[in-house]
Amino acid sequence: MRINLNETAEFLKSCEDAVIITHQSPDGDCIGAGFALKDILEAIGVRSRVVCSDEFPKRYDFMTETGCGEDFQPKTVIAVDIADTQLMGSLKDEFENKVDLCIDHHISNMEYAAKLFLNPEASATCELIYELAMCLGIKLTDHCAACIYTGIATDTGCFKYECTTVRCHEIAAELMKNHKLKYAAINREMFDVKSIGRLKMERIVTDLMEYYLDNKVTMICITNNILSELGVDANDLDGCASIPLQVEGVEVGITLKEREDGVFKVSMRSANDVNVSEICKTLGGGGHVKAAGCLVTGTLDEAKTLIVEAVKKALVD
Amino acid sequence: MRINLNETAEFLKSCEDAVIITHQSPDGDCIGAGFALKDILEAIGVRSRVVCSDEFPKRYDFMTETGCGEDFQPKTVIAVDIADTQLMGSLKDEFENKVDLCIDHHISNMEYAAKLFLNPEASATCELIYELAMCLGIKLTDHCAACIYTGIATDTGCFKYECTTVRCHEIAAELMKNHKLKYAAINREMFDVKSIGRLKMERIVTDLMEYYLDNKVTMICITNNILSELGVDANDLDGCASIPLQVEGVEVGITLKEREDGVFKVSMRSANDVNVSEICKTLGGGGHVKAAGCLVTGTLDEAKTLIVEAVKKALVD
Repeated sequence: MRINLNETAEFLKSCEDAVIITHQSPDGDCIGAGFALKDILEAIGVRSRVVCSDEFPKRYDFMTETGCGEDFQPKTVIAVDIADTQLMGSLKDEFENKVDLCIDHHISNMEYAAKLFLNPEASATCELIYELAMCLGIKLTDHCAACIYTGIATDTGCFKYECTTVRCHEIAAELMKNHKLKYAAINREMFDVKSIGRLKMERIVTDLMEYYLDNKVTMICITNNILSELGVDANDLDGCASIPLQVEGVEVGITLKEREDGVFKVSMRSANDVNVSEICKTLGGGGHVKAAGCLVTGTLDEAKTLIVEAVKKALVD
Repeated sequence: MRINLNETAEFLKSCEDAVIITHQSPDGDCIGAGFALKDILEAIGVRSRVVCSDEFPKRYDFMTETGCGEDFQPKTVIAVDIADTQLMGSLKDEFENKVDLCIDHHISNMEYAAKLFLNPEASATCELIYELAMCLGIKLTDHCAACIYTGIATDTGCFKYECTTVRCHEIAAELMKNHKLKYAAINREMFDVKSIGRLKMERIVTDLMEYYLDNKVTMICITNNILSELGVDANDLDGCASIPLQVEGVEVGITLKEREDGVFKVSMRSANDVNVSEICKTLGGGGHVKAAGCLVTGTLDEAKTLIVEAVKKALVD
């Protein structure tokens, strides 16, 4: 059942002992939303805990350092930034049918939760968490402000992408005005700092770049072989999806990552008018108009052919 | 003489036949400020023309396409975003002693103009141009909005750096709310799109990276030899100054570019607390606390030694 901002705020006020689920391969927005929501729930006297199937990457320490919360038997289950129960990873079996509330901004949300507060116009789930805090009349802690800022910044590429809204600039201004917000340090950590391995990776990605369909499409294929050759961690690869789009004249940038089970995880980005969500849907995936993904099985060559054909159809249409 | 916002607006209302000077190696902020000011002056009936010692790079076409303005004998000379007459390039001799008004945000401004509207708190000169337009009660054109947005975005690294202010988020929100602003396309052009040459350059820059002072300092040296080997244009190198800062743990990132006359242009960036403006001052240059520059003569090795010693002193202090 869809509920609105006020109803969601009412729900939060009345809930008890909440577990907040974040998605697998956690990113700035789901970690930000999870830990900001925990701060907010505590401010209104609701005990809470943040959980995730995966470990939180080290660069997000400034958000997670307040701790995930004590262990207790949850009475309320809240999912943040999770469009599909598949994204709960190893927590799926435990929680998929028990989600009382989902707070999300993905238009592709599968509506698996008893109550869903969805706003696909929002730049990030953290934008919705901010609106909830304002609706509840809570004075944010600096930590909570940093979490919310980080979610908005990471999901918009630091206010760079199409999904950036008027509201997220307004929220950034309000957070900077009212809090000790180390935005430059946060942005440096989120967008600029790279490990030596990552720098090497980018170099190799540039070398690996393949061009298709009159150079309108670039693709990079990151296989397990390349990873082991380089000795880099999978975490070093977050954000590689934007690299193929960097080339002049490219409309669709694609990253193929081989998972450990041999399945290829496809990230597709659109530079201008191509709707990659539609393309990924034809391959069983989904996402946003300008950033979507899917999973493809088969050999690397089969996967490539399948993907290029799907993009070709969309470019012709 | 320093003047304030209202006095500057009054000056603009009373001036006639204005030439607007932008600095050499023109960037998003000076081009944005120049062409936005031209729009504003025209809106209040003042004929104006934008001039620059160098050609405007092609990626700024969306700002310059309205044209630099007709030729006329100027009665008013306005400099935008020019801290020092040296930065006028080949226009210096013609204009250095004739600047009636300078609008700038660089704390290092040399106060060479008859009237100076300086706000070092502003993120960009374009922020000041926006305030002037509001003060004059002008309804901005979409073109003017795009110019102002671009200046703010480029000078703040798309709202990423320390110099980002509450006000520039507020202005971005207002521009997005009131105008057809193609912010994503602008940002893509300003920050993401790279020529194949530039991608190659970044790869080589990564390879060239030298580490000093316990890896707290990274330096890249771009010589004429490297440029001719690669066959890349000097314009492809804008922004390379931020690359050395990308490495984990680095405090000061330095780019040395050999100019055609053999002088080295040094760009220095600080990741955290080191004041690179102070360091560059000891080398005869200046700039912002986190981004500064200077010129160094000598052989490459002499230049490197000089710079590393200057940084070493600052790190010890």
